[in-house]
Amino acid sequence: MSGKLGRPPEDRVQRRREIWDAVGPLIENYGARSLTMRQAAAASFLSLGGLYHYFPSKRALVLFGMDQEVHERICLEFEERYGHLKESDPRAAAEAFVYFFGGKVSFIRPALRAALELGAEEFMARLEAGINVGLEDFVKTLSLALPDADDRDLRAVARSVRRVVLAGLLDRSITQSEVEEELRAVMSGVPGGRRLSRPLASVPT
Amino acid sequence: MSGKLGRPPEDRVQRRREIWDAVGPLIENYGARSLTMRQAAAASFLSLGGLYHYFPSKRALVLFGMDQEVHERICLEFEERYGHLKESDPRAAAEAFVYFFGGKVSFIRPALRAALELGAEEFMARLEAGINVGLEDFVKTLSLALPDADDRDLRAVARSVRRVVLAGLLDRSITQSEVEEELRAVMSGVPGGRRLSRPLASVPT
Repeated sequence: MSGKLGRPPEDRVQRRREIWDAVGPLIENYGARSLTMRQAAAASFLSLGGLYHYFPSKRALVLFGMDQEVHERICLEFEERYGHLKESDPRAAAEAFVYFFGGKVSFIRPALRAALELGAEEFMARLEAGINVGLEDFVKTLSLALPDADDRDLRAVARSVRRVVLAGLLDRSITQSEVEEELRAVMSGVPGGRRLSRPLASVPT
Repeated sequence: MSGKLGRPPEDRVQRRREIWDAVGPLIENYGARSLTMRQAAAASFLSLGGLYHYFPSKRALVLFGMDQEVHERICLEFEERYGHLKESDPRAAAEAFVYFFGGKVSFIRPALRAALELGAEEFMARLEAGINVGLEDFVKTLSLALPDADDRDLRAVARSVRRVVLAGLLDRSITQSEVEEELRAVMSGVPGGRRLSRPLASVPT
């Protein structure tokens, strides 16, 4: 029976993201070591077999926040959605970056915690490389949003953003909106940056 | 032969600190996993047996930056040396804290790296507890150094100091003097804090 209509091809990465959204808080609150695949399955409304379909091992699950493929996807989505703002409305693009970094911190943090518990040699190098790519792009946007800022200003902002992001990764007491608030405070320190220092009513699409 | 004069009792903690000073940079530059006890011994001018005398295992060595005993010792020394300044010269006491936090970041960072490579469940809880104790003490000092600052200001400073310290722990690109510089910048944001915002010519003893 050729030509049979099956279900549409599944968006596996997206499905893994949804599971991660459910499991991340468990890791943050109880740790990766004590987490069982059964608990993770329950939190994701999946059977144990269903969970193993998406994550072949607990290690793959608890370190997913640093998975290369999902970060490429997140960056691609960001670029598709907000990339055009860089030229047309750099201020909105800068604010979009604030949300982007805030979201990334929340996404990665449980995996950093898991890495600290279980050991993950490869983790730091990937983390540093990822942050550097994001920062480069952000500085480019900021140079358009703040034409009065010189190279020194922009480098200083990039350094501060890096610090806020890294601290947010290690600090369970900081919320995503606090990360965003601090990033705005950092930008407002640059000449002309004060007008970037409050959130837009909404990030335009 | 009783009454034989031996060497003075050895200061074991101090000796372990010296070894750590030599080994920490190796961990930061090459990682904990690839480090051999033989390399660590060579960097510390010790025989392999000599190194094992101080550190029974590589794990004990590479996580030493988070050792409870050494941190108690460091805090005690700080208190003995600078504690009296809190009342007599709170501004100098605040600056002493800046050096203290800067030094702690450098001391702990290789162990955080090692924990990320090898896994160290207990690491984060200890780290958070340690930072909180240090911050409490710092805020007390700051309230004396900055009588115009209210509780809200001081809490904000404590939060920012926490961020600078945590980011410094994760970020190999930040130097100890940059950590100190950022801490001064944080303090200078508080009412009356600008006079704390430059380093003293020397930290008085």
